[in-house]
Amino acid sequence: MKNFIRLLIGSGENCADIRYAAGISTPDDFIFFACGGEKSAVMSALEIDRARASAAPGVTVLSESELDGPDRLNILRAIAARCRCRTFTVPEDFPFGLAERMRAAGLTVLPAEGRFFPEREFKSTAEVEKITAAQRAAEAGLARAVDILRASTVSGQYLSWRGQPLTSEILRAEIDCEILRAGMLPTGTICAGGTQGAQPHHAGSGPLAAHAPIVMDIFPRSPASGYWGDLTRTVVRGRADTTIRRAYEAVLAAREHAKCLLRPGRCGAEIHCAAEAVLERHGFETGVGERGQFGFFHGLGHGVGLEIHENPRLSPRAGTPLRGGEVVTVEPGLYYPEWGGIRLEDLMYLPPSGPARCLTAAPDFLEL
Amino acid sequence: MKNFIRLLIGSGENCADIRYAAGISTPDDFIFFACGGEKSAVMSALEIDRARASAAPGVTVLSESELDGPDRLNILRAIAARCRCRTFTVPEDFPFGLAERMRAAGLTVLPAEGRFFPEREFKSTAEVEKITAAQRAAEAGLARAVDILRASTVSGQYLSWRGQPLTSEILRAEIDCEILRAGMLPTGTICAGGTQGAQPHHAGSGPLAAHAPIVMDIFPRSPASGYWGDLTRTVVRGRADTTIRRAYEAVLAAREHAKCLLRPGRCGAEIHCAAEAVLERHGFETGVGERGQFGFFHGLGHGVGLEIHENPRLSPRAGTPLRGGEVVTVEPGLYYPEWGGIRLEDLMYLPPSGPARCLTAAPDFLEL
Repeated sequence: MKNFIRLLIGSGENCADIRYAAGISTPDDFIFFACGGEKSAVMSALEIDRARASAAPGVTVLSESELDGPDRLNILRAIAARCRCRTFTVPEDFPFGLAERMRAAGLTVLPAEGRFFPEREFKSTAEVEKITAAQRAAEAGLARAVDILRASTVSGQYLSWRGQPLTSEILRAEIDCEILRAGMLPTGTICAGGTQGAQPHHAGSGPLAAHAPIVMDIFPRSPASGYWGDLTRTVVRGRADTTIRRAYEAVLAAREHAKCLLRPGRCGAEIHCAAEAVLERHGFETGVGERGQFGFFHGLGHGVGLEIHENPRLSPRAGTPLRGGEVVTVEPGLYYPEWGGIRLEDLMYLPPSGPARCLTAAPDFLEL
Repeated sequence: MKNFIRLLIGSGENCADIRYAAGISTPDDFIFFACGGEKSAVMSALEIDRARASAAPGVTVLSESELDGPDRLNILRAIAARCRCRTFTVPEDFPFGLAERMRAAGLTVLPAEGRFFPEREFKSTAEVEKITAAQRAAEAGLARAVDILRASTVSGQYLSWRGQPLTSEILRAEIDCEILRAGMLPTGTICAGGTQGAQPHHAGSGPLAAHAPIVMDIFPRSPASGYWGDLTRTVVRGRADTTIRRAYEAVLAAREHAKCLLRPGRCGAEIHCAAEAVLERHGFETGVGERGQFGFFHGLGHGVGLEIHENPRLSPRAGTPLRGGEVVTVEPGLYYPEWGGIRLEDLMYLPPSGPARCLTAAPDFLEL
């Protein structure tokens, strides 16, 4: 007997679970349900042809009009009748308003226990290839930035390129153009120079200074597959002073040490703390001062897949052992309001057995 | 007395309501609440400095640690204690799982009646300027595409540019690069040639043919303001045959007629149906054939603001009169599986009094 209907509502662009289950990439929300052996996506007339062409194997594409649509509650009632089941399980982020209206209409709505697709955490070979393809575009963007920084000249305190001040905005646009030409979508690329780099999520703005660190965090998405890449390098155009050089060496050592520790059976917290210990041994403390936080104050890494930040986490609270199959970033950083930040990020695949494999092909360098 | 706390959870990038209310643009979800005179955003340590720098006037930025965070339920309990109120109203798309846990913790969660910020539909002068700025980037992207199409050569059936076949992918990347250089974010740009254009949401792929329509739908977003632009033009590189030319003229006439009808007091359905009637008078019928839908089978237009598709709609079901202050697209189209599609889209602002104003500066042309 069918006990419940698994129900998702979202867009292929914004809801990783529905993209994982249905294989359909659309900008507008649609309904996906699974019951017994049936897996179906319910599409508007506008999307139905495109959805049929891209649906995952085993997924039936139904039109809203076949299910008393386009009103959503009508469609859900029709699904209940079709499946002969009035109980739906839905994910954590299912829209609350619709859940209330479903209940008022006599349907039962239960939150799913845990994640809807915990298997998303463990990547197939095909998924690792899709992530790697996105990572190649990030590397192409970084290579373009390095070319521009090398071609730039130092005039006074700031950098100049093609006769104009080189700004974060210009450098970001050039990185993003390279990603577009590689067929991927750039999203929120960070080019933060000098003290802006002391805020890990600062996108960067204004003229870029010579002899100061420039944090470049590049995370493109494949429009075709939906999978992401993630890459960070920090460089200096000109000469890095002793503090910056020591911080760079500490972060690089922490990253490489953490990469060596990555293997099934270890938990994220253990690896995070090991990286933190390397930074401390290099003399870099973490804390809060008058000008805000300093040191290493974010998680060491996160899973990457159909979401840019997904499970597992490599953070102080991540106590579940890794199982093998995960793709995670390893990205220690040091941030000081006085001079800026250093972050170095590689993307790693943990096979079920054997050593972790680095999916990042970009070289490491500080001075350009 | 405080009767309830208005509660939002989302990211500045993906939740238009929270961006509207808090003025904060972040990639990660955060909590916003309003109670009595207090409006506050609750940020992680990682985002707090950036959030304080960008928060809207009157919005207090609190750190998760001030409110027993980072656990969300703890934070919500702390907010209830701070506001001396245990009832929250939340929007339609509030996460269902969290609502259930709030209820289990003794908090009351009610869906808000109607939209959370219905005033988002009516734009201030400053908002119209932000939309117009994004629209200028769409026009720059279109101008780049037109330059490339004009510079392309016709070799056999297909177009060639810089010695290579000109594909949808290349044209899209060049449009998107122009948008990036204008400081805006390209999102899902459509360049669909020939019969691909018969599916209104087909992004387009592969070589572009000469003498066939190319639908270019360009909708960039401002990363700084969060507002969108939206522009569609359809062109032919080479010679358009009689059918394509007649369809183009019908769509242009429908668009211009609908633009003239836009004014406060009229409803979206009335304007949609008027545009449809123009297409019919030009001899273009709508229906479903063996190869799928044909004719004009989508809504005439939609509101544009912090969402690319928002209220009001110009569609057969839109019965609420326009009030003035809306920014809407007017985008009739004709689609035939045999030869492709024509869509022409302008962006319009309806002031509270006086004629509607076109925010699109791009010229209209068919043949290049």
